[in-house]
Amino acid sequence: MKLWEKGIPTDQKIDLFTVGNDRELDLVLAKYDVLGSIAHAKMLQKINILTENEATDLVTTLEEILAEIEKGNFTIEDTFEDVHSKIEYLLTEKLGDTGKKIHTARSRNDQVLVDIHLYLKTEISEIKKLTKDLFDLLISLSKKYENVLLPGYTHLQIAMPSSFGMWLSAYAETLIDDVVLLNAAQKIVDQNPLGSAAGYGSSFPIDRSFTTQELQFATLKYNSLAAQMSRGKSEKTVAFAMSGLASTVSKLAMDICLYMSQNFNFISLPSHLTTGSSIMPHKKNPDVFELIRAKCNKIQALPYEITLLTNNLPSGYHRDFQLLKEGLFPAIQSLKSCLEIASFAIKDIQVNETILDDKKYDYLFTVDALNELVTEGKPFRDAYKIVAEQIENNTFQSPKATKHTHEGSINNLCLEEIVWKMGNVF
Amino acid sequence: MKLWEKGIPTDQKIDLFTVGNDRELDLVLAKYDVLGSIAHAKMLQKINILTENEATDLVTTLEEILAEIEKGNFTIEDTFEDVHSKIEYLLTEKLGDTGKKIHTARSRNDQVLVDIHLYLKTEISEIKKLTKDLFDLLISLSKKYENVLLPGYTHLQIAMPSSFGMWLSAYAETLIDDVVLLNAAQKIVDQNPLGSAAGYGSSFPIDRSFTTQELQFATLKYNSLAAQMSRGKSEKTVAFAMSGLASTVSKLAMDICLYMSQNFNFISLPSHLTTGSSIMPHKKNPDVFELIRAKCNKIQALPYEITLLTNNLPSGYHRDFQLLKEGLFPAIQSLKSCLEIASFAIKDIQVNETILDDKKYDYLFTVDALNELVTEGKPFRDAYKIVAEQIENNTFQSPKATKHTHEGSINNLCLEEIVWKMGNVF
Amino acid sequence: MKLWEKGIPTDQKIDLFTVGNDRELDLVLAKYDVLGSIAHAKMLQKINILTENEATDLVTTLEEILAEIEKGNFTIEDTFEDVHSKIEYLLTEKLGDTGKKIHTARSRNDQVLVDIHLYLKTEISEIKKLTKDLFDLLISLSKKYENVLLPGYTHLQIAMPSSFGMWLSAYAETLIDDVVLLNAAQKIVDQNPLGSAAGYGSSFPIDRSFTTQELQFATLKYNSLAAQMSRGKSEKTVAFAMSGLASTVSKLAMDICLYMSQNFNFISLPSHLTTGSSIMPHKKNPDVFELIRAKCNKIQALPYEITLLTNNLPSGYHRDFQLLKEGLFPAIQSLKSCLEIASFAIKDIQVNETILDDKKYDYLFTVDALNELVTEGKPFRDAYKIVAEQIENNTFQSPKATKHTHEGSINNLCLEEIVWKMGNVF
Amino acid sequence: MKLWEKGIPTDQKIDLFTVGNDRELDLVLAKYDVLGSIAHAKMLQKINILTENEATDLVTTLEEILAEIEKGNFTIEDTFEDVHSKIEYLLTEKLGDTGKKIHTARSRNDQVLVDIHLYLKTEISEIKKLTKDLFDLLISLSKKYENVLLPGYTHLQIAMPSSFGMWLSAYAETLIDDVVLLNAAQKIVDQNPLGSAAGYGSSFPIDRSFTTQELQFATLKYNSLAAQMSRGKSEKTVAFAMSGLASTVSKLAMDICLYMSQNFNFISLPSHLTTGSSIMPHKKNPDVFELIRAKCNKIQALPYEITLLTNNLPSGYHRDFQLLKEGLFPAIQSLKSCLEIASFAIKDIQVNETILDDKKYDYLFTVDALNELVTEGKPFRDAYKIVAEQIENNTFQSPKATKHTHEGSINNLCLEEIVWKMGNVF
Repeated sequence: MKLWEKGIPTDQKIDLFTVGNDRELDLVLAKYDVLGSIAHAKMLQKINILTENEATDLVTTLEEILAEIEKGNFTIEDTFEDVHSKIEYLLTEKLGDTGKKIHTARSRNDQVLVDIHLYLKTEISEIKKLTKDLFDLLISLSKKYENVLLPGYTHLQIAMPSSFGMWLSAYAETLIDDVVLLNAAQKIVDQNPLGSAAGYGSSFPIDRSFTTQELQFATLKYNSLAAQMSRGKSEKTVAFAMSGLASTVSKLAMDICLYMSQNFNFISLPSHLTTGSSIMPHKKNPDVFELIRAKCNKIQALPYEITLLTNNLPSGYHRDFQLLKEGLFPAIQSLKSCLEIASFAIKDIQVNETILDDKKYDYLFTVDALNELVTEGKPFRDAYKIVAEQIENNTFQSPKATKHTHEGSINNLCLEEIVWKMGNVF
Repeated sequence: MKLWEKGIPTDQKIDLFTVGNDRELDLVLAKYDVLGSIAHAKMLQKINILTENEATDLVTTLEEILAEIEKGNFTIEDTFEDVHSKIEYLLTEKLGDTGKKIHTARSRNDQVLVDIHLYLKTEISEIKKLTKDLFDLLISLSKKYENVLLPGYTHLQIAMPSSFGMWLSAYAETLIDDVVLLNAAQKIVDQNPLGSAAGYGSSFPIDRSFTTQELQFATLKYNSLAAQMSRGKSEKTVAFAMSGLASTVSKLAMDICLYMSQNFNFISLPSHLTTGSSIMPHKKNPDVFELIRAKCNKIQALPYEITLLTNNLPSGYHRDFQLLKEGLFPAIQSLKSCLEIASFAIKDIQVNETILDDKKYDYLFTVDALNELVTEGKPFRDAYKIVAEQIENNTFQSPKATKHTHEGSINNLCLEEIVWKMGNVF
Repeated sequence: MKLWEKGIPTDQKIDLFTVGNDRELDLVLAKYDVLGSIAHAKMLQKINILTENEATDLVTTLEEILAEIEKGNFTIEDTFEDVHSKIEYLLTEKLGDTGKKIHTARSRNDQVLVDIHLYLKTEISEIKKLTKDLFDLLISLSKKYENVLLPGYTHLQIAMPSSFGMWLSAYAETLIDDVVLLNAAQKIVDQNPLGSAAGYGSSFPIDRSFTTQELQFATLKYNSLAAQMSRGKSEKTVAFAMSGLASTVSKLAMDICLYMSQNFNFISLPSHLTTGSSIMPHKKNPDVFELIRAKCNKIQALPYEITLLTNNLPSGYHRDFQLLKEGLFPAIQSLKSCLEIASFAIKDIQVNETILDDKKYDYLFTVDALNELVTEGKPFRDAYKIVAEQIENNTFQSPKATKHTHEGSINNLCLEEIVWKMGNVF
Repeated sequence: MKLWEKGIPTDQKIDLFTVGNDRELDLVLAKYDVLGSIAHAKMLQKINILTENEATDLVTTLEEILAEIEKGNFTIEDTFEDVHSKIEYLLTEKLGDTGKKIHTARSRNDQVLVDIHLYLKTEISEIKKLTKDLFDLLISLSKKYENVLLPGYTHLQIAMPSSFGMWLSAYAETLIDDVVLLNAAQKIVDQNPLGSAAGYGSSFPIDRSFTTQELQFATLKYNSLAAQMSRGKSEKTVAFAMSGLASTVSKLAMDICLYMSQNFNFISLPSHLTTGSSIMPHKKNPDVFELIRAKCNKIQALPYEITLLTNNLPSGYHRDFQLLKEGLFPAIQSLKSCLEIASFAIKDIQVNETILDDKKYDYLFTVDALNELVTEGKPFRDAYKIVAEQIENNTFQSPKATKHTHEGSINNLCLEEIVWKMGNVF
């Protein structure tokens, strides 16, 4: 069923091409489409376009549909173009003329906008929750391994003493920045686009403040064309925030893959978390972290896909926007699964506690040695030369104990401050 | 079934996460996996690792599997990790120990490499064929509408006389460049990676020239590590070529959407190729071309996704590569459908033959007028000033007839030369 | 002068290649490098690494250098590797051993981090200010042209009545979302990385809270490795925010270029804002808006460049980060110039007040007509069919007057609410 | 001087914004602009628009300008908009009315197109030559270190025996694919766009075959609009080819950085090729390879930037295209410098010949051991289990000698075949 059918059938080939996999993608929107319709129906009654009975009938039927959706019984058959058509069909089938009235004073353009805004609000909340879980885990492991030293690298060269405590809580603190960006994205989608109709508003005296309250949006996207222009732009903003978070998780996964290499041997995974090789019997591969890395890297391509879909299109709706769902919706699920599986796998990581016994790590302590000379009164640049000479002549003696006291150093990780900072943005 | 299972089960959660939608994607590879296995089995016999009977059994069974695949009966159940495991299982189920021998002297790494190379070779050929169909259509329409004038624009401002003949054959000639790039991609995938095993070759005395000939590859990718490094790089090259072609088709679709706007009104589509609006009864929307544009734009994001998946990974196999399939395989199908539907829809485009009657297009001919002054002996810069003054004073008289005779001008489109050029690269 | 020179000269070729155009880019950091050094010197005194005299000498000399920088007299000669070397050289030249002490307890890694954080904080503020200027202009023009109608398009097809008031304030309201993202970026760079040294902190008892206050950062980036990991990530976040804003401005420029086409003829530019053609005397081209569009599109490639530079690098400093400046710094200047020139040029746009006289725009009002039928009691879907038939039979009569009353409709633009919303985030 | 100046001055602010850094970028085009003008002048004589004397005067003066350009004496002052204006000015200054005639029958649009095509043809040749130099070096080092074993990795886990010979020639063979793509790009730019004028041809009876021969293009881009549409598309194709090559070089640099880490210690660089740290006296950093990696990664963002600049623009010239030069021209220089410096630095790499003495690499030989069991008659899957058990029980004995004989294995690198393959595409 097509809402706009006027008698002449669209060629079937065209149909297949234009609808694509929309029905499948639309399933996640079904719940929000119903919620949007409920608010819309109530509003239509408030402005006397629907009678009280009509509104009640619509709301009741919509709530029944919602119950089916939540039970997983809702489907969009091939005879329907999209979720909106299916729901309107169900209403009309049950309520006759009353069902036909639900589309008064709205367009599919603002209907899908409100669906997507509601969907994104919910998904961002879930992503934030999973981010917080990972943060909590990293903080607790950081505490647990606070005193286990690790070589710190610059240029992939052995550089300065680090620790598992520092390494793990570095990612925790970085996640706070990712939440800041998620918050911005959430604020941007938390604006009601319903009532913008096809992108230019309508001649019905609708009450947009009412639906804004009903749907618990923080505010309206007032200007109807601005509401329409948020299509693509909202998705891109969310994709930016997801991309920021994904890059943190990808980097962590990269570190883990490297640290699991026999050449580092800093950490290992229990067997049930590794996979093997079809020809090499000795292999215990960190596939799970490679795939976290890969999935998070793929997510980072999303903003560019969205930009390519929307860029240089003049204002107003274009059918191109339909394709925004194809990239974004699976990416959201992918990011959530990466966060979940990361927490799941990282909690069982086994830490090598004797890393620094290897004498190749002695040079980690040259700066500490140098600093001691400075503390004894040598200007920094002169102390630098002295230690450089000791290294050149193989006479350098490593102190091997650290007394780093400042905020954010290995012996003063400020975990409480970091937890407090996360609390502030969450 | 996992080929590398050694007793300790991988956590199910990890399993689900790592396998992803691989089974579904692998289906398109099934045919090529069998072909690769047939060549491999024959080779193993040639070097006496398999007996003649064993090889015959394997080849016969593989051919039976191939027949099932081509009938659409092949499936990869959840108990199998991928297409390779499923086929090895079928062989072992039927042939016992002989089946177990097929994986001798190869790894899943080179197995999937050879599958993908064979798959891409085939798909590029199909894309080229569809490109040629579109080319032929554009050339024939260009001939048909050779004399229908069209305003040419620069800066989106009315500039110089153009024609439907010029416009349509411009896209035809541009498609030739796209074929050149597809040819390069095809040459790059036309190198046999089989025998590179896990990426470092093997200690078996395999005969890679033999499988190269069996599989009709133009040459070997000799170096085993180079063969492994082609993972991701081949896909990226194909994505580049697809992206080049997609940008041509996208631009054509953009032109069509613009020319169908009432503000241009250069072309129209018959009703069966347009779609309507759920609230505006007068709308006949060019959704099909908007979606061609969008799908082609999405394809242009593919090389960046592939780059993000592979960049900064050191040499050697990484599980990240598994995700290459997810983006590339559907993009290939999408590009093919765009080419098909473009040919299907463009052939029915209706052309407005009276466009230039509108007097806003008179200025198209200022340069022709100016050129006449030059032909009469005025230096170009002076002629420019004279015509500029006529325009300023509203005294400019448009010639309204064109006599453009040079190669590639509106009255001399060189369609035969363009067809000949395409022939040269096809 | 190289800070790390130990006798063996680096090959000159390598030198040239590695330093690149760093000296030029570093000039914008000079001011912030001095400010960071002043705070660092004061802190070193506070923890008794410097005497009061030494600290005073350093601060005084640094303030002299700052004065030279602000007069535009500061240069980085080819003999210096970067801004940090040059300033350390100036201090040592003037103060001898005292100068050599400034680098105590810091590394170039945290030095450049603090420079960039300070620089980005300032630049984001300036970008926000210029965004606000453009917002104010759009609001005031929206008021001025509140009642001038404009066709609204969907699918580039004539759709529904819009207005200059709606069009202009749509972009204004959209800019608010861009500010929300800029705010998030600013919050993320407003964290003090100084004291993280090479990325793992130091053995000196430095007081990072002190420098945080001195430099007016909102908080510390506590974890030293997290501070180091913010390199690239901060830049990317800022690039995301810039990219969001750039896409709004680019879209506005696209609309303007389209609306200036003779086929739309909605607006025009005074001659002093257009450019001509070298061969077509009649051309008045909107180059300025084409270049705004192009520059803003180029800016949207920046996050991808940054991602490619940093992705899949394990934690810790890599020299790759040096190249982050090359893309970001000019992009910031480019975005600022786009905002400035957009405000400059848009204020003089001339609006065509008689657009809707053209009868091709009659269909704009089909929905208004349809809505009237609904108001009279027809179910929406039936009204839709009636109007569709009128159009088919050429009997449709356009109402040509709009009475859109809801929030955000053409007759109720809610400009005050939009201004108030901007106030809330600014 | 503006070629299109008609009396009313463009606002200076606009001027500054629109010209940007075009003058600087145009310098590399000066030579090609002159060559294009010489061919154009000769052609104008051939079709009797110029007299023999006029043509001779123009050609002579243009050759004088060319000599100045090659001496490095050519500049574009701020009073000129671009290189085309400057050269036309020089001609008019010297030859009066004859100078003014050079622009007859062309536009700046086709003038810059021909300049860029000539420039890119030359630059691609140079890039290919530098690629061949690197290829030759890698082949010769591969021969030199043919027998030095190296661990081969999959999943960053120790996997199978590799060698310096295999590693180095793997990159050599991969470069062949990059040349294939460069060849495609070169074929695409080797088509003459001159004569397409503003994008729609002209009414002058110009002889485009003549200029095609004069400028040694392989063929014409016949269709004038196709010639215009090659703007952006040619650049993108070249960027694709550069991006392919850059990814190979980046990956090689990544391997080198990793192999230089103390945790691998496979190779080292002589001191004159490393750089130090401002605070860690022991550091010898591989900055040169980090910057090769970074610059090559940045180049991989170029196709995306070009796509963003050109995508969704309808056919015909847009001023946006001016910005194509900004990204592409410096990227070409950057790629060339990366190739040069890579050859320069790699030739001095020092190879660790005793890597495999470390017992952690014993497991490299499990597959060789397994294969021996297979050769003795065990089915592959059973042999796999036996070796897996030996590893589990710590009873595995490494063979430590390799007898890999097949094409492309460590003991049969097929260097001659690889050299021959490169010869075929060069």
